[in-house]
Amino acid sequence: MKVVVLSGGVGGARFLLGVREHFAGTDADITAIVNVGDDMWLTGVRIAPDLDSIMYALAGVNDTERGWGRAGETERVSAELRAYGVGWPWFTLGDLDLGTHLTRTHYLREGLGLAEATRRITARWPLGVRLLPSTDQEVETHVHTADGVMHFQEWWTRHRAALPALEFEYRGVVDARPAPGVVEAIGAADVILVAPSNPVVSIGPILAIPGIRAALTAAAAPVVGVSPIIAGAVVRGMADACLTAIGVDTSADAVALHYGSRTNGGLLDAWLVDETDSAGIPTLSAAGIRAAAVPLWMTDPATTAAMVSAALELGAQPGS
Amino acid sequence: MKVVVLSGGVGGARFLLGVREHFAGTDADITAIVNVGDDMWLTGVRIAPDLDSIMYALAGVNDTERGWGRAGETERVSAELRAYGVGWPWFTLGDLDLGTHLTRTHYLREGLGLAEATRRITARWPLGVRLLPSTDQEVETHVHTADGVMHFQEWWTRHRAALPALEFEYRGVVDARPAPGVVEAIGAADVILVAPSNPVVSIGPILAIPGIRAALTAAAAPVVGVSPIIAGAVVRGMADACLTAIGVDTSADAVALHYGSRTNGGLLDAWLVDETDSAGIPTLSAAGIRAAAVPLWMTDPATTAAMVSAALELGAQPGS
Repeated sequence: MKVVVLSGGVGGARFLLGVREHFAGTDADITAIVNVGDDMWLTGVRIAPDLDSIMYALAGVNDTERGWGRAGETERVSAELRAYGVGWPWFTLGDLDLGTHLTRTHYLREGLGLAEATRRITARWPLGVRLLPSTDQEVETHVHTADGVMHFQEWWTRHRAALPALEFEYRGVVDARPAPGVVEAIGAADVILVAPSNPVVSIGPILAIPGIRAALTAAAAPVVGVSPIIAGAVVRGMADACLTAIGVDTSADAVALHYGSRTNGGLLDAWLVDETDSAGIPTLSAAGIRAAAVPLWMTDPATTAAMVSAALELGAQPGS
Repeated sequence: MKVVVLSGGVGGARFLLGVREHFAGTDADITAIVNVGDDMWLTGVRIAPDLDSIMYALAGVNDTERGWGRAGETERVSAELRAYGVGWPWFTLGDLDLGTHLTRTHYLREGLGLAEATRRITARWPLGVRLLPSTDQEVETHVHTADGVMHFQEWWTRHRAALPALEFEYRGVVDARPAPGVVEAIGAADVILVAPSNPVVSIGPILAIPGIRAALTAAAAPVVGVSPIIAGAVVRGMADACLTAIGVDTSADAVALHYGSRTNGGLLDAWLVDETDSAGIPTLSAAGIRAAAVPLWMTDPATTAAMVSAALELGAQPGS
C-alpha cells in the first residue's frame, strides 16, 4: 500500500501520526509531500517550519505542551542574536531547532537540494514516513496587506494573522519544479490524502508548484481530503483569516468546493467532514465530491487513526 | 596617539588588554589588524576565531579558565549537529559563540564585507579597540603534511599540531586585498606593534595579504614587535611546530630575524624580548633591529601594560 499525504506543519504532523498509527505493523509506504511556503532565510540559516514540525512530531521530540518546536528547548543562541541586534525579535529560534537549521543550511551550501537535505536530516530518526518537500526551489509565501507585503512568517507570527490579507503570493513559484520523487510518489500512490492543513497557505502552495496539480489530476489513486474546518471554525491556527482573503467561507463544504471535484478538473474525489457538518454532504455529492461525516478531532494518534480509516474507506468506495 | 597592533587570537587578545590598559584614560585610538587565516565555513556558518577571541577578551566575556571561547558556554546546538552527523566532531561550536557566527554569517549573506560585519558585531560592546580583519577575502591557512593538506583548524585542533607540517599555504592570498581601513590605519599610525602571536600562522597570514607589507614598509611610524618566544619556548600554543616547519628556530632572536629589519626591507624597527633572552640583543642590533629586554609574561592587563610601555619606549628611541 502506497500512501501519499499532502501536508502542512503542525496540523499535518498530527494527521500523519494518525496515518502512521493506522498502518502500524503493515508494510505500507507513507510519503508526506510537505509545504515549503513558510520556509525562509533568517540570520543566515534556512528555516523549514513545516518539514521540521512533522519530523519532530514523528520522532516524538516535539513540544506537545507548547504545540510547536522541540521539547526541552532553550533559546541561548537567540538571546545572543537579539543582543547583536539581528534576526526578528518576535521570532525565536530554539537551540535544538537551530541544530536542524544549521544542518540543513550546511547541506544546501554544499549544493544539495532541499529534498536530499531532508532525506539526510530525517535519517536521524525512524519516522515511518518519508518527508518530501514539495519543491527544491525557494517558493516563499508572501502576504499582501494594506501595510505592505511581508513574508508569511511575519504576518502569521508577528501580526498573528490580524492584518487583513489582500492576497497570498507564492513568490518564485513560476520557476519552481516538483522536488525529485514528488511526481513519482503521486503517480505510484494507492491513495492520496489531503491533510486537514490550512488550504490557503499549507496545501495551496503545494498545489501551486507547476506539475504537482497535473500529477494529482492524472493520478490513478483516489484523492481524499479531510476538512480542517469543523462547525464553521478552524480546528487550530488561523485558517479563517486566510480563507476570507481568498473569498472562501470558513466552512467544511466551502473548502471542499474550493479544492473542487476531480471530475471537474479539481483536486478531490472525496472529502471527510466532521459529524457536525453532515448537512453539507448532499451539496458536495451534487458537486461531484463523495463525502462522509465522522468525528474529526485529532485528540491522539488512535483517534486520528480511526479518522484515517474512514478517509481510506471513503476513498476506496466506487466513484459517483 | 594612533596605535596599530598586528594580532592573532588568544595571545593577541591578552596583549591588547595590556595595550588598552596602558592607554586607559587617554584619547588613544587603538586599531587591531587581525589574522583571518584560521577562519572557515563550518556547518553553514562563518567562523572567525581570532576576531572573536579578541572581542570576547576585550568585552570581558571570555572564558579565562579554559582559555578560549565565551564564559558560561554550553554546547546544545553542537550536540544536535553531532546527532545529525554533520560538522567536525572534534570541533565544538558553543551556543553563545554560535550567536556570533550566525550574526556574521547573516551579514556576509547580506553582501557585507567581513570588516563591516565585524564593525557591526563589535558595536555590541565598548571594546576600546577597533578590530579590523586583515582582509575581507577568504584567505584560509592550509597545512601541507605527509597525510595530506588540511585546514589549519583541523591540523591545530584535531591533530594538536602533532603532524609534522611541510608547508603553510595561505589559500586565496594572491587575490586578497587589505580590508577597508587597514592601509589607512597603518599609514596614520604613530606606532605599530606586532603582538606576541604565532609568527607563522597569526602574523604571517597578515603580512602575506598583498599591500599590507608594503604599507608597513612605507609607514612613518616605528614597528615594534614583542617576542612570542621566551627562553627558547613558546609562551602558549604550539608555535614551535610552525616555526620548525618554516626552518626558524624557536628562539626570540630567530623570530626577530625571520621578521627582519625595516632597514633591510623587513618588518621590524625594534623587538622586545624577555629578560632571559637579553643575550641576543647585540646580534639583533647588528642586524638593524633595536632590542630591549623586559619581563614578557602577560600575567594580567597591568603586567602586560608595563610590557606595552616598554615596547612604546623602545619604539620611540631614535633609530640606530
